[in-house]
Parts: sequence; C-alpha cells; structure tokens
Amino acid sequence: MSASAASGFLLSGTSSTVTVGIVTPQKMQFDQPLHLRSGAQLPAYELAYETYGQLNALRSNAVLVCHALNASHHVAGTYADQTNNTGWWDNLVGPGKPLDTNRFFVIGVNNPGSCFGSTGPTNLNPASGQPWGSDFPVVTVEDWVDAQARLLDRLGIGQLAAVLGGSLGGMQALAWSLRHPERLRHCIAVATAPNLSAQNIAFNEVARRAITTDPEFHAGHYLRHGTIPRRGLRVARMIGHITYLSDDSMEAKFGRELRHGALAYTTQDIEFQIESYLRHQGDKFSEYFDANTYLLITRALDYFDPARETGGDLSRAFAAARAVRFLVVSFATDWRFSPARSREIVKALVDNQTAVSYAEIDAPHGHDAFLLEDPRYHAVMRLRFDAIAREVGV
Amino acid sequence: MSASAASGFLLSGTSSTVTVGIVTPQKMQFDQPLHLRSGAQLPAYELAYETYGQLNALRSNAVLVCHALNASHHVAGTYADQTNNTGWWDNLVGPGKPLDTNRFFVIGVNNPGSCFGSTGPTNLNPASGQPWGSDFPVVTVEDWVDAQARLLDRLGIGQLAAVLGGSLGGMQALAWSLRHPERLRHCIAVATAPNLSAQNIAFNEVARRAITTDPEFHAGHYLRHGTIPRRGLRVARMIGHITYLSDDSMEAKFGRELRHGALAYTTQDIEFQIESYLRHQGDKFSEYFDANTYLLITRALDYFDPARETGGDLSRAFAAARAVRFLVVSFATDWRFSPARSREIVKALVDNQTAVSYAEIDAPHGHDAFLLEDPRYHAVMRLRFDAIAREVGV
Repeated sequence: MSASAASGFLLSGTSSTVTVGIVTPQKMQFDQPLHLRSGAQLPAYELAYETYGQLNALRSNAVLVCHALNASHHVAGTYADQTNNTGWWDNLVGPGKPLDTNRFFVIGVNNPGSCFGSTGPTNLNPASGQPWGSDFPVVTVEDWVDAQARLLDRLGIGQLAAVLGGSLGGMQALAWSLRHPERLRHCIAVATAPNLSAQNIAFNEVARRAITTDPEFHAGHYLRHGTIPRRGLRVARMIGHITYLSDDSMEAKFGRELRHGALAYTTQDIEFQIESYLRHQGDKFSEYFDANTYLLITRALDYFDPARETGGDLSRAFAAARAVRFLVVSFATDWRFSPARSREIVKALVDNQTAVSYAEIDAPHGHDAFLLEDPRYHAVMRLRFDAIAREVGV
Repeated sequence: MSASAASGFLLSGTSSTVTVGIVTPQKMQFDQPLHLRSGAQLPAYELAYETYGQLNALRSNAVLVCHALNASHHVAGTYADQTNNTGWWDNLVGPGKPLDTNRFFVIGVNNPGSCFGSTGPTNLNPASGQPWGSDFPVVTVEDWVDAQARLLDRLGIGQLAAVLGGSLGGMQALAWSLRHPERLRHCIAVATAPNLSAQNIAFNEVARRAITTDPEFHAGHYLRHGTIPRRGLRVARMIGHITYLSDDSMEAKFGRELRHGALAYTTQDIEFQIESYLRHQGDKFSEYFDANTYLLITRALDYFDPARETGGDLSRAFAAARAVRFLVVSFATDWRFSPARSREIVKALVDNQTAVSYAEIDAPHGHDAFLLEDPRYHAVMRLRFDAIAREVGV
C-alpha cells in the first residue's frame, strides 16, 4: 500500500501508484439463451469479464462492479500489451484503494450488446451468418443483471458482498437489489436515478437521431455495407459530453478561450477551445464505439424504470429489496442525474424501513465526478467497504 | 381594448383578441455597403421590416424590437394572405398590450444573414450570380445594430424611446446602448446574457456540427447542388429545443409518457412522447430554416461579448451606456441564460451608477418564458412602457 493510499485521503486528480497491475480479460460462453424483457431471446452468447483480488474460501468477498455507457469489464489495472489502457475505475479499485482488492474479489463484466468483448451487434448473428447490426435484440438493465447473475453462477458465487455501479451502472445495482434480492448484501448506487426524466430521454433521442439519420447508418446494417456512421457518432458523443460536465467546470476549464488567440470570423472552423475539445471527444469516440451499441445502451437507460410495474410508486417497487444496507451517492453539480433524483431512491428505501446511507458530495465536476478521485467521495466509499469487509470477515 | 387586456393581468396561455390586425411587411434597399466587424463588408442589401402604430409628430415614440434566432421582423399582427401567421411577440405588442401600439410606433427588422426576407445566404451574391451560401459574410450583433440604425435614419427616427429584445434580441438591445448610446432612451433586455458561457457555445457547436457534417451541406453551397442539409437542421433544432425548455416544464408536459401506451422495445422508432415532439419540432424547422443562417446566427451569439474590448471587465464596457434607464428581466428556470447572467449585466450597470431595474420572474417555462404571457412578466413590461409613454408624452 502506498503512503498516499494509506492516508485514506488521496488528492483529487492524483492516483495511487499501486494498482492491481497487469490483468487479463477472460471470456465465458453461455449456450442457453438469455430470455429478455422484451420477449425476445439472445441465443448462445459470450461475456467478457475481469476479476481482481482473490475469492476467499467462504466465497463471501465478491463485489460486482457494473459499467455505464462508455465502459466495459476493464475496471482496474492495465493489459500486458497495452500498458496505457488503465481500467476506468482504477482510482477506486485496487490494493489499498477504497474498494480494496487485498480484501475483496472484484468482478467487472461487459454487458451483452456492448462493443467491448461480450456478444453485441458487431458479432455474427448465427441465424444469418452476418453481423447482428440492428437485428441485435433490445436489452434492458434487467437483462444485463440476469446475464451477470449467470456468470456468478458459473463462478460459484451465491451471494455478493456488494454490487456497485455509477450512472447506468448504478441502475444495474438497483436492479440487482430488486431482481435478485437475496444475492447481494450491499447495494451501492452512485450518480444515478430511479428512471430518466423527459429531458434525459430527449438528449438520448437527439443523439440517436444523429446516428440513425447519418446516411452511412443503413438502418443499422452499416457493417454489411462496409460503412460506419461516424458523423452521427461524433455528434452523439458531443451532446453526451456536454451533459457529463457541469456548466461551472466547463466554464472553469474552457470559458471563452479562443483557439488561435484572435477571432477568425468563421462559421465552420474552430474559434473557441471548447469547440476543439468537443470535436476531439467526438472524433475519438467515433473511432472505437459501435453505433448500434450506442442505440441499445441509451435505450436501456430510457427503459429503466422499476416503478413502472407498481403504477409509478417507487416505494412499492423497493419493497422487494432485501439488501442489508444501501449506499446512495450523488454529486451537487450533476445536472444529468441530480441529487434530487438520488433522494427519490433514498425516500423509497426509507419508506420501506430499509437501511440506507446517503452522501451528497459537493464536487464541481458534474456527472463525471463519479469517475474522479474526490477525497470526500472516496472517503465515503472507503468507509463503506471497510464496514462490508468486517461484516464478511475479510 | 379587450376586457382581458384592460385588466393588466392576462392569464398565462391566453391571448388578447385585439391585435394590430393585418400588417404588411416592407422592404428597404441600401446601396452603400455595411462595414462589418470582421473587416469584411456586405455590399448593397435589403432589409425586411414591419411597423405597428403611428410615429408621432415629435418622432419620440418609436420602439425597436430586436429578434432572436428563430424569428423575424414579423413581431405582431397577421398577414392578409396568411391569417394564421401571427407575429412572434403578438401577446406583448398591440393595442392595449404592454407595448401599446396605440401609443408607440413599434418597428421590427429582420437582420441581414437571416432567411426571412432581409438579404441572407439564400440570396444571390452579386459577385458570382450564385446564391451566397457560406460565402455570406459573418455578421455580428453589432453589425445588426448598425444595419438597424441605418434603417432608422431612413425612417427619420433620431432617437428611440426604447430598444427591446429577448435572448439574442436582448444582446442587440445591450449593443444598441453601447454602440449608439445617444439614440435610445430606454434599453430593455429580457432573458439574455452579457456573453455565452462555454456550455452555451458547446450546444451551438454541436448543432453546427450536425449541419456542417451532413453530406448534403456541401461546405455551405447546398443550393448550388440542389440539396438541403435537412438531417443536420433537424438535429440542430432538437438540441436547441431542449435548451429552450426547463427540465421541470418538459417533465410536466411529457414525463415518461409512451407514444403507444405500451413499450415496443425499439432503438429506432418512437417510444416516448418527448421523442415524437422533438422529431416534429426538428422536421418543421428543417422545412423553412436556412442552414447557413443557422450557422451565422449561432456564431453571432458566440461572438457577442461587449467586455472583450475592456479586458473582460463588463463594468468598464458599460461605462459607454447613456440610456435614461435599463430594464433587465430574467426567468428563474431559464438554464440557457440563467438569472445569474442577467445579474452580471445589472451589476455592471450599477457599477456605473446607471439607472437599472431588474425583475426575476419565477416562471416555470425555462428560456421560452420570454415569449409567453406570464402575468407578472407582462405587468413589469406594462409598467415600464407606461412610464416611457409618459416620459415621451404619448
């Protein structure tokens, strides 16, 4: 354990030098179809996953980390052949880190429908021998949770010490508590919401329209046409990116700074640094992210709504939860999933006399804060995982 | 004057039945070039405008109304051949309305670069005989104000009783007070800002990228190619529309209501009513709005920054203002141009000991509130125009 990690308060923006080190992604094949909420099914499929730390003899120290839109099973560590490819939550997960891999066995799973290793739209549809494309079945948060549960079955893990996720990952954590209530002791939902607001859906829809109206989209069968709807992906990512940052943090980072020092008076070229930054984010994203995956994942966000089946009553929906305790964390400047949305979750749990802790972190970074190393945020996470470790005897 | 208008408090969402009636748009030709802030110039050009009410003998009762992104010189009334085409601020401007055309001579001018009648990118470039397209020179808020001033010269109006505008129109009102300080008695700036934030510019940039990366855009010369970048325009409008509405008003109007009552599990078709609404807005917009105009007008928004020439010091910038009094109005739920941005303007005026009134209206409709008929808002406007009328003797 490094000195900085041992202090319990890492400086924001710095990273402990101790990581889980070199990790190797694994794959598991499932030959039984996954029955989906839509009524369709996903035939034989593969899940990509990674694990960090050791499963103890009692099999009581497993923690599942669920990923959000633009992430994968690669939660921590790096790859032998890609030493710069650090896991997306490496600042949280590792030896001596808040989710301490010296104590916990941590699992990251790539969700079906993704483009990072698990079966998704870029893979071949066994029925046609062509890439699935837009014929890939619509998957929901609940479907993902079921797929993750099957993986745990195969790993011999009956009950998780905790399920943890941020944003869309937080929705999966909540869905775990309702769909497999006996299989998790703790539920930790960060920067999330009990469903999307009309404004949230609106942003998703504009991003989807940018993709689906790109002439290279070909109704989702672009791979068969040898094209990629990069223009649409770029615009979709630019829109998304604005919603991940707070107004204030964008102002602090970019303000009205000009790209070239003086105005060029142009409608098509870059004038402001913020434009350059957004275009760069869009360009990068369009090089690696699959368009159909983008549609599927934003739709999974839209569809998540545990209160739908209880007439909109979230408290009744959470009556099914059996976890020992919940932790709900929000960030003051997150306008995508505001603290008010987290408080709805807390209220529903309190209404059921379910134990819940709630932390509202006054971080300036907007929605992105859940991925960053704010010392107050990490202190909350460390405290909770320390308590869970004691509870499960590690 | 109708009974409802006479009461001084119109119900929100209703409209007085008395309007300025049938109006006729006019055009005025300018043969001297307009020298633009960019250093370029606009050669001979035409301005479309409308007037309502009568100019008094002292020529002291003229009020200029400046338009925002998606509007024009058609401020009030209807057209003989289009009786459904009501002016965009008809609820505010008319006989007995807050800006009372029985007392004031009200002028609406379409800005150069627009696509609603004044010379713009869809007109022929005299140098090439082809549509201007993206060769149309970049115009700024200050250039528009100069063009408006020339129109007033030709109408024989030396000093305006007031300049009024909302959003981008409010920026023009502010620019009037700095660029032609002796030519206006009152400046009324509604739902506006002293410049765009990084987030504001970011939304504009994404919208522009949707347009300019549409394959039908042809670097802005789509008319020569017989195409229109409708896909890009649709996405641009959808993005813009989200920022005009408050999160709460969108939630109240649409929430998570489904289009067809039950989920269809589709990534490309409409599931939620908000999607249907946004697509409809995008479709409508793409039928009538010119893409190059969209780029020009969003750039004018980006460029507006009166403090640029005073090292970022807005108070020093407003030292040039000479208006008798300012009125600044903001709306609590406007997250595009929040009340905090209006208060920056107020502070700069107060720092100069300039008389200013400020009203922050607790309306739920977001940025769009400035176009709606909130009784508190309209009462503020009515009071101010009543005072101005007394001041100029009408």
